[in-house]
Amino acid sequence: MVFVGFGFLMVFLQRYGFSSVGFTFLLAALALQWSTLVQGFLHSLHGGHILVGVESMINADFCAASVLISFGAILGKTGPAQLLLMTLLEVALFGINEFVLLNLLGVRDAGGSMTIHTFGAYFGLFLSRVLYRRQLEKSKHRQGSIYHSDLFAMIGTIFLWIFWPSFNSAPTALGDTQHRTALNTYYSLTASTLSTFALSALISGDGRLDMVHVQNAALAGGVVVGTSGEMMLTPFGALAAGFLAGTVSTLGYKFLTPVLESKLKIQDTCGVHNLHGMPGVLGALLGVLVAGLATHDAYGDGLESVFPLIAEGQRTARSQAIYQLFGLLVTLVLAIVGGSLGGLLLRLPCLDAPPDSECYEDQIYWEVPGEYENEAQGPLSVEEPDTRA
Amino acid sequence: MVFVGFGFLMVFLQRYGFSSVGFTFLLAALALQWSTLVQGFLHSLHGGHILVGVESMINADFCAASVLISFGAILGKTGPAQLLLMTLLEVALFGINEFVLLNLLGVRDAGGSMTIHTFGAYFGLFLSRVLYRRQLEKSKHRQGSIYHSDLFAMIGTIFLWIFWPSFNSAPTALGDTQHRTALNTYYSLTASTLSTFALSALISGDGRLDMVHVQNAALAGGVVVGTSGEMMLTPFGALAAGFLAGTVSTLGYKFLTPVLESKLKIQDTCGVHNLHGMPGVLGALLGVLVAGLATHDAYGDGLESVFPLIAEGQRTARSQAIYQLFGLLVTLVLAIVGGSLGGLLLRLPCLDAPPDSECYEDQIYWEVPGEYENEAQGPLSVEEPDTRA
Amino acid sequence: MVFVGFGFLMVFLQRYGFSSVGFTFLLAALALQWSTLVQGFLHSLHGGHILVGVESMINADFCAASVLISFGAILGKTGPAQLLLMTLLEVALFGINEFVLLNLLGVRDAGGSMTIHTFGAYFGLFLSRVLYRRQLEKSKHRQGSIYHSDLFAMIGTIFLWIFWPSFNSAPTALGDTQHRTALNTYYSLTASTLSTFALSALISGDGRLDMVHVQNAALAGGVVVGTSGEMMLTPFGALAAGFLAGTVSTLGYKFLTPVLESKLKIQDTCGVHNLHGMPGVLGALLGVLVAGLATHDAYGDGLESVFPLIAEGQRTARSQAIYQLFGLLVTLVLAIVGGSLGGLLLRLPCLDAPPDSECYEDQIYWEVPGEYENEAQGPLSVEEPDTRA
Repeated sequence: MVFVGFGFLMVFLQRYGFSSVGFTFLLAALALQWSTLVQGFLHSLHGGHILVGVESMINADFCAASVLISFGAILGKTGPAQLLLMTLLEVALFGINEFVLLNLLGVRDAGGSMTIHTFGAYFGLFLSRVLYRRQLEKSKHRQGSIYHSDLFAMIGTIFLWIFWPSFNSAPTALGDTQHRTALNTYYSLTASTLSTFALSALISGDGRLDMVHVQNAALAGGVVVGTSGEMMLTPFGALAAGFLAGTVSTLGYKFLTPVLESKLKIQDTCGVHNLHGMPGVLGALLGVLVAGLATHDAYGDGLESVFPLIAEGQRTARSQAIYQLFGLLVTLVLAIVGGSLGGLLLRLPCLDAPPDSECYEDQIYWEVPGEYENEAQGPLSVEEPDTRA
Repeated sequence: MVFVGFGFLMVFLQRYGFSSVGFTFLLAALALQWSTLVQGFLHSLHGGHILVGVESMINADFCAASVLISFGAILGKTGPAQLLLMTLLEVALFGINEFVLLNLLGVRDAGGSMTIHTFGAYFGLFLSRVLYRRQLEKSKHRQGSIYHSDLFAMIGTIFLWIFWPSFNSAPTALGDTQHRTALNTYYSLTASTLSTFALSALISGDGRLDMVHVQNAALAGGVVVGTSGEMMLTPFGALAAGFLAGTVSTLGYKFLTPVLESKLKIQDTCGVHNLHGMPGVLGALLGVLVAGLATHDAYGDGLESVFPLIAEGQRTARSQAIYQLFGLLVTLVLAIVGGSLGGLLLRLPCLDAPPDSECYEDQIYWEVPGEYENEAQGPLSVEEPDTRA
Repeated sequence: MVFVGFGFLMVFLQRYGFSSVGFTFLLAALALQWSTLVQGFLHSLHGGHILVGVESMINADFCAASVLISFGAILGKTGPAQLLLMTLLEVALFGINEFVLLNLLGVRDAGGSMTIHTFGAYFGLFLSRVLYRRQLEKSKHRQGSIYHSDLFAMIGTIFLWIFWPSFNSAPTALGDTQHRTALNTYYSLTASTLSTFALSALISGDGRLDMVHVQNAALAGGVVVGTSGEMMLTPFGALAAGFLAGTVSTLGYKFLTPVLESKLKIQDTCGVHNLHGMPGVLGALLGVLVAGLATHDAYGDGLESVFPLIAEGQRTARSQAIYQLFGLLVTLVLAIVGGSLGGLLLRLPCLDAPPDSECYEDQIYWEVPGEYENEAQGPLSVEEPDTRA
């Protein structure tokens, strides 16, 4: 599912559709393999063998999602060799971060507000910072969307929306916990969708909606309940969280992204800071709050499956909350340090980055039918036969 | 699933793609929230609390489907404020109708031939009647589809086709009944697809197929077994029902829709009368017939899960059939009265309906990249950078 | 799922999108009905009744997949009457082949490397051979893809990729065997994706990737483990198989397809020989190998569900391997003879094949909005109102 969603979400660039979908496909395939190995070494090494199964497939999927989030920040400004190296680095670091959080610190993070979204977003943003391109405006004319590319991107949005409840609840305990996670995610998504539409119309000068907000901020509700979805968030809490996430994310697209680029020199192609970064951090903080309020009364027998350490008496709710907060800090430090070092590595000249004037351009990596000039004159003028025949 | 399907099914309009997908998304999110509340008050209020769970999610989904059907009738002729008000009204009325049918009358309607399709279609049609636009031909030039928009719409068709068996069988009893429902739906869909293709070629002058028929009438087979799908329809019965539904629906697109507009002043943008209205009524009548033929011999132990009132001896098969017929009448009356009153409300000037000459137009509600004029000259000429960066 | 995937995979042709999706839909609906009957007569006739259920639905789905593979070979060069006749023939022959393999020879072929892919591909290729069009170059200018049609085709690719693990594991025994099949398919797909990208860049002169390879060869990994997926292939074996399949398939698109057309007069529109033919035969041979290595030690109690005849002592692993090989030969003979005879039947003049100069053209079968000429001048100039209103 991750594939369809992320792949098409990034198709909005008018001349970068092949690369968006194709490289998503390539990076995901590599990340799935490599993360099965990395996570196998860290988690499930038994007598020299790695145990694989449905669980390791879900874990590898989550890791691939994190890679694709980072890809979103540097979309259009990196070549395939750079992207493959980034994938190798990020998957390893993702595995380490997840191992520290879940196994060493006993942090709960079912839907990955921290491990997937916060980590992926800040890793990608700091990568993008180090790879800052002073003369990117040379490629600005290719950075817009066109009518059909926005519709393709909506395929991605709607898919992610639909499958987010399953995504967040996949790694939780079967039964009540899984249902609770799915319902919380679902309420949060509906709330972020409504707040995004409302705000998008409000902040534009003329009351018109912006497709960029709808495509992205509507999903922030799924990110924000990634940590707390399996906890006793209550439907009202989920609605409030989703509303807040949609608001923050929409405002981020309008006001924060331009500032990030002009002041902090972070060029964030897909706005992952708005969709994954801020809602991820918010989600982690929400997890701190909800974990701190956990009581035996509220969870009943379900406490064992959500907070086993509290149920066994090894931790109080307050200390669990502190561990959750500490987990967020570890994630941020690892993502920032990793992204910065990764960026330095990716600047190696042998990795063949595209020049500033050739960003957001499919033609350097793909054989493009009709080579665009013909398309402008309409499909009738494409003369070259397909290589398939 | 409802989202992908309905959203893309409506993308066929050449300059209304953003609104079709975007408003589908908005209305669905609102309907899901609001119907959880409405249905909670009516069905599952326990000591001041509403019970939520997978079942309430499915119910809310069905209600959203009904809203989207009505949206199809008025697509392109209403603004977002009107649509949101319509959603609030229709969700409440949907809840009341469903409560009357299922709880008070003991009617069976698993896949919602009555509660979803008939209700949604006639509500939308009477809304459209009251909102009749005399000078809609001013926007006629935008009402056609273009090549790519028809392909997008086929994404919707194929999704709905594939998930219809799951859709119809979701609320039925687990086990045999659920399998029977899925199989009946599946046979009916294959039959309506074949009859649609055959008839589409026959009724066009030159033997060429019409994409509109394929996109829509092929799905009528799923609508027509909405009531009777869980009953002992037999595969042959399902095939016959699907064949009939595909035929009626295709003929409706060709002959009835133009008459509805010119004579009855009902402007039905997506032809919901053909896809949901007539097949829904047919499906309800088929349910009357099959319920009237129910015997202990045919159902065995399964009678309890399909017709609990007959199994318990409270009703005969004949009286169940009469209740089913009465359920259809209640649905039609509520839909017609509700749609007409709703239409009067939606004519309030403060709701900001688009003028006759600006129907089927994205630009009044959305910031459209390149603003169309550029797109006509090919993607190369789009100059504005994307707001994402 | 088969529908979405195959339908959109074939949309790459610039002026044949309606026919690709529409005829896929038509043929699949017919194949599902007809194969339920055919397989019912052969497999599950009990006292004059055919038993239907989830299993018969899956079987019918697989048969439809085989028909759509053959359709891929003759895409654009046949009319609907020819296609319907082909479907009737192929479904019957598919049923016979499957009956011989699974019931008479006791061959294992869960994901259908033989019964679906090899059979469908060679049936279609020999059909295409008999229907050879000497003057197809008259339609060459319509045989290319355009930018958006390639993106639509990627929807198909990614869907098939995601659902292939479910597809291969659907008919296997629940539990361990099903999980093993899904994991093997998944590893094989990731490997074929990576090898396809690597090779696609290597074999093009300038290091640029070819969308045709990515769209198709990336899926070869799913085909190649169709037979052996449920067996003890080991993850490493699955990765190696996928790598090999991706390599063979990519090389096939580049070097073999042109030779097939110029030397053997087989015009293979979608390159089914590369995606289904060769990987299918490879998969069958891999099945021979892995079956020959089966031991009680490796499978434990699972041997009963994968190789019941070996578990019961009726066969040795070696004799099972010979039966598997014999099954491949039977499949090839039936496909080649059936395809050739089918081709002769399809040449009947009453079936109304399109002329050589009208291949790959939607307009002879569909009412196309704007009739293309307008589209070239941009969407604004489409004047005809939609028939929906």
